[in-house]
Amino acid sequence: MITVQEAKHIILQNAQDFGVEEIPFLEALGRVLKENVVADRDFPPFNRVAMDGIAINHRFFEYGVRDFKIEGIQPAGAPQKTMDNAAHCYEVMTGASLPNNCDTVIRYEDVSINTLMATVNVDHINEGQNIHTQGSDKSNGDVLIKKNTVISAAEIGVLATVGKAMVKVAKQPKVMIVSTGDELVDVHENPLDHQIRRSNVYTLVSLLNELKIPSETAHITDEKSVLKESIASYLEEYDVLLFSGAVSKGKFDFLPEVLEELGVKKLFHKVAQRPGKPFWMGIADALGMSGRNEKTIQKLVFAFPGNPVSTFVNCLVYFYPWYKKSVGFEQQAQTAILTENVSFKPDLTYFLQVKLQSENGQLLATPIKGNGSGDLASLVEADGFIELPKTAETTFKKGSIFPIIRYR
Amino acid sequence: MITVQEAKHIILQNAQDFGVEEIPFLEALGRVLKENVVADRDFPPFNRVAMDGIAINHRFFEYGVRDFKIEGIQPAGAPQKTMDNAAHCYEVMTGASLPNNCDTVIRYEDVSINTLMATVNVDHINEGQNIHTQGSDKSNGDVLIKKNTVISAAEIGVLATVGKAMVKVAKQPKVMIVSTGDELVDVHENPLDHQIRRSNVYTLVSLLNELKIPSETAHITDEKSVLKESIASYLEEYDVLLFSGAVSKGKFDFLPEVLEELGVKKLFHKVAQRPGKPFWMGIADALGMSGRNEKTIQKLVFAFPGNPVSTFVNCLVYFYPWYKKSVGFEQQAQTAILTENVSFKPDLTYFLQVKLQSENGQLLATPIKGNGSGDLASLVEADGFIELPKTAETTFKKGSIFPIIRYR
Repeated sequence: MITVQEAKHIILQNAQDFGVEEIPFLEALGRVLKENVVADRDFPPFNRVAMDGIAINHRFFEYGVRDFKIEGIQPAGAPQKTMDNAAHCYEVMTGASLPNNCDTVIRYEDVSINTLMATVNVDHINEGQNIHTQGSDKSNGDVLIKKNTVISAAEIGVLATVGKAMVKVAKQPKVMIVSTGDELVDVHENPLDHQIRRSNVYTLVSLLNELKIPSETAHITDEKSVLKESIASYLEEYDVLLFSGAVSKGKFDFLPEVLEELGVKKLFHKVAQRPGKPFWMGIADALGMSGRNEKTIQKLVFAFPGNPVSTFVNCLVYFYPWYKKSVGFEQQAQTAILTENVSFKPDLTYFLQVKLQSENGQLLATPIKGNGSGDLASLVEADGFIELPKTAETTFKKGSIFPIIRYR
Repeated sequence: MITVQEAKHIILQNAQDFGVEEIPFLEALGRVLKENVVADRDFPPFNRVAMDGIAINHRFFEYGVRDFKIEGIQPAGAPQKTMDNAAHCYEVMTGASLPNNCDTVIRYEDVSINTLMATVNVDHINEGQNIHTQGSDKSNGDVLIKKNTVISAAEIGVLATVGKAMVKVAKQPKVMIVSTGDELVDVHENPLDHQIRRSNVYTLVSLLNELKIPSETAHITDEKSVLKESIASYLEEYDVLLFSGAVSKGKFDFLPEVLEELGVKKLFHKVAQRPGKPFWMGIADALGMSGRNEKTIQKLVFAFPGNPVSTFVNCLVYFYPWYKKSVGFEQQAQTAILTENVSFKPDLTYFLQVKLQSENGQLLATPIKGNGSGDLASLVEADGFIELPKTAETTFKKGSIFPIIRYR
């Protein structure tokens, strides 16, 4: 049995590169950018009027001139005009190009307009005021968004601004999510007394959905030959297989055996943690697949224990960071403050369900009393897990700080 | 000019009810649940074996028996079996129904198995151990997920478990996002010197996308008759109109005028904030629409100022809470700690772009030096806005705590 840290280390060492694809920018929300996005011109691209009002040549204001004849109007979206007489003014609109021979904008609030004459009602103005100078934000060629940025609404706006109608993002892995266990029936079915409905595969689909990873699902009965045949075909077609169930010590839990027979090399089996201990992890070279990919991709197999909370926490603790490392998605670690003492005796890392609350700039984590790893309903009450380290101590004190893994 | 608090108050008072729709559960991620989801049976639905091992009748262990003849196997997914001889044992698998006449499970690790005989190698076991008792998590009829919960992967799993293949969620408003301004060209076009590309509508589409709200976009030129005709048709077809631009004091900014002519009642114009001050907000009764909706829905018009950062922050500060109140999505306020002194003189609420960092259970907010409301590129550097209140003070001290609005 290895520790959580060892398991994470092994998994991150096996991050894969799924390549790059080009997609319409508006579909790129939540994806990882795989090119630097540069300014295609100066920003702003011209001396941009930043207030509605009049544009003048400041020199004349300095000479004591307060009345300026209105020579014309410069609307936004019109080519730049030229003020012929430097002692005149131009009416200018926010977003417009500053007319030639003007260098300062005075907002309407500080001006009285009388048909063709504007009178400035303030005694002090700054030369160059209310102008957003060409290139003052960014210059042509500057990097606006760095490669590996996760694309939010802010990046979508910048992509539009620089005309990146198509954008390069990390390709998503092809994922198959498989449930095993003869006790499972499907969502629309009525389970018999000894049966329960499949739920873990849908939880996993949704957790992957949060990362914009599409996935497919399948169910295989607890029959070794069927299991072997199905998995062999999934290993050909998919980059990643996620299993839920059939990895503990039961008579019918032959998944690890089948996987090894199919050439999936075990990376580890069992991690010193609760819940989620019987986690099996393996890797296979994608033999015969060189036609599809220029370089060999290794196929990853995450076989999570079948209890709902075990599957859930292991997906967050292992699959998420593996995926993020694979596509270059940098993740900031988060910590929270425990609001109660927690007793935990086993020599295992304890992923405890917590409710999270922001208070005075602090993130507080309050334990949710669940009924162990089978209690899916308790996940509904919580917002995440706090990671209490494997240690000889049995009490984690109120007020201490630990890493957290949020799922909402 | 009203304050940010007044503006928020007015907007929340005008929250609307868009009704309820029933959708497939797997599409409900991120949506707001509009029914209580109850347990359709006990959870677990039977006395569920929680460890692979043997099941015995504890009484015999107490009598000193350590060798138990294996009477049979109870796999997961098989109907419950009955152990005929109470002094025997059954091999049992995780997830299985506990056989009749058994009351305690001993894990394989504590047992030696010799063909038909299991020998227990530990001196102490607890009666009832390793059994997840029927109904110990939830009883038939218990509420598992409360109405108005935002559906995460955890809720998807529970919906599957109780067989809710279809689920009632809040209907989304129909939203039209409109840009105005003759200086704008589309993303795939090459702007002339005085033009820029449309970006705010796409930022808004993406911000709404984060809330799973689909939206449509349009562009209208700065011509009053065209603007009026288009808006009249949008007011018929959509629940909400979002505008970007044409609400400040410019000669061609006749949007508020046109809206009022169309019967959209102004709720306010201008809010004491930076950026985003010239925000115009209005409401119209949906006349002649009673055929489509049983009760009259009021149409909301959010007309944001056209600068990229202004549009962005106003969507987060006003549209987001309005939408959340409308659909019953409860939002927890978040606060963060300022890491630097900030000077700000104007008597306005200041939405300052910040980089956020979790450190020792605290959320730290470090100001990003942008170039004002026109500087979209600075949104890329930040994670959110810190809301510094309208106050006579001009310095907000390092270490003080203020509300934050995150966008990543």
